[in-house]
Amino acid sequence: MSKLITRSESNFAESFRPSSRTSKTPVSVTRDILKVIDSPNVISFAGGLPDDSLFPIQELTEIFQNSALQKGSKLFQYADTQGHPELRAWIAERYYPDSSAEEIIITSASQQALDLISRYFIEENSNIVLERPSYLGAIQVFSSYSPNFLGVDYEKEEGPNTDQLEYILRSYSEKPKFFYCVPDFQNPSGHSYSSKSRERICELSSSYGLPLLEDTAYRELSFSGSMPVSLYNLNPDRTVSIGTFSKTLSPGLRVGWIRAPKPMIKDLIVQKQSMDLHSPTMNQELVFQFVSSDKYETHLSKIREVYQRKAVHTFNCLEKTFGATLPFEMPKGGLFFWLEFPKRIDTDLLFRKCLEKGLATVPGSAFYIGDQIRNHLRWNFSNASEQETEQGIQRLFEVYSSLLADQE
Amino acid sequence: MSKLITRSESNFAESFRPSSRTSKTPVSVTRDILKVIDSPNVISFAGGLPDDSLFPIQELTEIFQNSALQKGSKLFQYADTQGHPELRAWIAERYYPDSSAEEIIITSASQQALDLISRYFIEENSNIVLERPSYLGAIQVFSSYSPNFLGVDYEKEEGPNTDQLEYILRSYSEKPKFFYCVPDFQNPSGHSYSSKSRERICELSSSYGLPLLEDTAYRELSFSGSMPVSLYNLNPDRTVSIGTFSKTLSPGLRVGWIRAPKPMIKDLIVQKQSMDLHSPTMNQELVFQFVSSDKYETHLSKIREVYQRKAVHTFNCLEKTFGATLPFEMPKGGLFFWLEFPKRIDTDLLFRKCLEKGLATVPGSAFYIGDQIRNHLRWNFSNASEQETEQGIQRLFEVYSSLLADQE
Repeated sequence: MSKLITRSESNFAESFRPSSRTSKTPVSVTRDILKVIDSPNVISFAGGLPDDSLFPIQELTEIFQNSALQKGSKLFQYADTQGHPELRAWIAERYYPDSSAEEIIITSASQQALDLISRYFIEENSNIVLERPSYLGAIQVFSSYSPNFLGVDYEKEEGPNTDQLEYILRSYSEKPKFFYCVPDFQNPSGHSYSSKSRERICELSSSYGLPLLEDTAYRELSFSGSMPVSLYNLNPDRTVSIGTFSKTLSPGLRVGWIRAPKPMIKDLIVQKQSMDLHSPTMNQELVFQFVSSDKYETHLSKIREVYQRKAVHTFNCLEKTFGATLPFEMPKGGLFFWLEFPKRIDTDLLFRKCLEKGLATVPGSAFYIGDQIRNHLRWNFSNASEQETEQGIQRLFEVYSSLLADQE
Repeated sequence: MSKLITRSESNFAESFRPSSRTSKTPVSVTRDILKVIDSPNVISFAGGLPDDSLFPIQELTEIFQNSALQKGSKLFQYADTQGHPELRAWIAERYYPDSSAEEIIITSASQQALDLISRYFIEENSNIVLERPSYLGAIQVFSSYSPNFLGVDYEKEEGPNTDQLEYILRSYSEKPKFFYCVPDFQNPSGHSYSSKSRERICELSSSYGLPLLEDTAYRELSFSGSMPVSLYNLNPDRTVSIGTFSKTLSPGLRVGWIRAPKPMIKDLIVQKQSMDLHSPTMNQELVFQFVSSDKYETHLSKIREVYQRKAVHTFNCLEKTFGATLPFEMPKGGLFFWLEFPKRIDTDLLFRKCLEKGLATVPGSAFYIGDQIRNHLRWNFSNASEQETEQGIQRLFEVYSSLLADQE
């Protein structure tokens, strides 16, 4: 079939004029690292990857078979934008007392939830408040809507600095559109808000009319199985809560949700229609059948147990290898260690040197809006094997030591 | 668990300030109709729904089982944003001669492809060119980016009015970002571009540096099995082509694609990262294993045969019921009849009267940017049974006749 027009590289440059948005959306550092680390020599602690071996593949295969047989073509046809009604009811009942399926919309995991919420709230230069550090994927998607980021510092083992938050709410002529926060085992720091901090934030939200955007991605991954009350529970009218089955069941299925007040859900449905009509039907069915079965609690207990064991092993390796030189903190849940190095260590450099030695992590700077703090590494402990963890920490120690030696 | 803050309906209104985008995104008429028509008394010809009975459910179930067994956890873990490499290679080879897997990005069906492309191109008030009528889902998603729509009239059995297109390209100080078009069995009109029209459009694209956005959703649904050359083939450097497996395999799986020049794909990957990280892994595997098997051609032949039979049946019913009073046109592929009524019939009214009588269609006005032409109905023929089609057309005739009688 002959072409009508001569091909040339300049044709593209002459014709395609991308929007300014394309230059405003930062490339995700972790996604880029994930591409690099496919090499067999690299051990990776970079992604927030669940342990592969915990996916209930056999059970999901059986569900696919049974549901295809019983529900047939309906699972392969176009479906409702808001999502699987029984799955929505299950989510409402489990996580949001006094709410209903009408207040839930199913999304293609929490990244799409963040995008949908960005569309709903953010105009160019809208003020939005984030923790410092904050979740990378949220910073990325928010950035593509060109907001004005306002950061409040995360105070270890307490929560965000509420004085800073109050200062912003009291002193800025344009009220922030929302405060995005991860109160449970935050990505990247692994920290959680204290009960007192949760209450104070909800009081501020109430006094100043500040919507809270609560990301609960890691809430189920508490080693002890229990957690302080959620922001939704304390302040349901002003809290938009997002969740995902990526960490508890399987990220490849891409199923998550938003719980929001009904008038907002109505608008979110219209936005989601325009974005992808609806999330895949069968994926929602697979999740629903699994989480509503009696296997789910057993599965969660197992995940918590395995992750706690892996975290303890990682902590022991760190202590053994680094001795008492660095103040490593043992997480109480979630997927990450937030390794703090002396201030004179630039972890951007440490990260690059580690990568050369076949060790992938994520430099702390990637998680900051405003001034970057550059003496942390995020270290995922859930995916690597015990042996890989030992090797990885050994490599980290070697690179760190040689960096220290260079400085002396 | 006690709430900290008193609940009240006014809490929402006081705190939540949606972006202007939320009011700019029109609700999809078809999606809203689809919600209404769940009642058992309504026969629907509204959606672009494939025939349920044609989904290869047994085959997909077997593929799930085999792939889960052979590839295991990889299909349930996070995956590459650009999408399943073998599926991308298959798409490149089948549809885009001289292209490669690198020029393809997998999307959550064609609606997300349109959203992704909107993000890439459209700024507020960007000029974009659409056919009149055009695809509703495209109008909806483009609208949420606030472009300036420029319409070119679709000339039956020929293609878009190229004089109008040339006028726009020659006379407007701001060049359009792209021309969105459905050259094959367009939704809603069912028409296709002639070879001459395709060539002329590609010449204009080349002379004026106009990117073409070619939507190939219905291209495989030609009753004869053959089609004129695609715009990609004629002008590869300036054509962005989107496709979907929703019409040929299953819409519930939500798998589609974009073929674009490599520098654009690079930017699209970053945008898709921010939107949903990646499309579901297993869904792409299901599609790949099915379409790359020898079953796919047989499956396509069967679909084409069934749809042609349904179209012929619909045409015969229309002729039999309406006699020679109206100029119905038999489509040559795709999923729709574009029923044209006398100019004095307002199909918005006809549509509402039909709905009262338990018959769902889509009024033609929904498909127009600029001045709405209001004497068409879009009639989907692929989903209903033969008997439903007979009943539906009978109801249509009765409502139409009583509307005519009212006017006399």
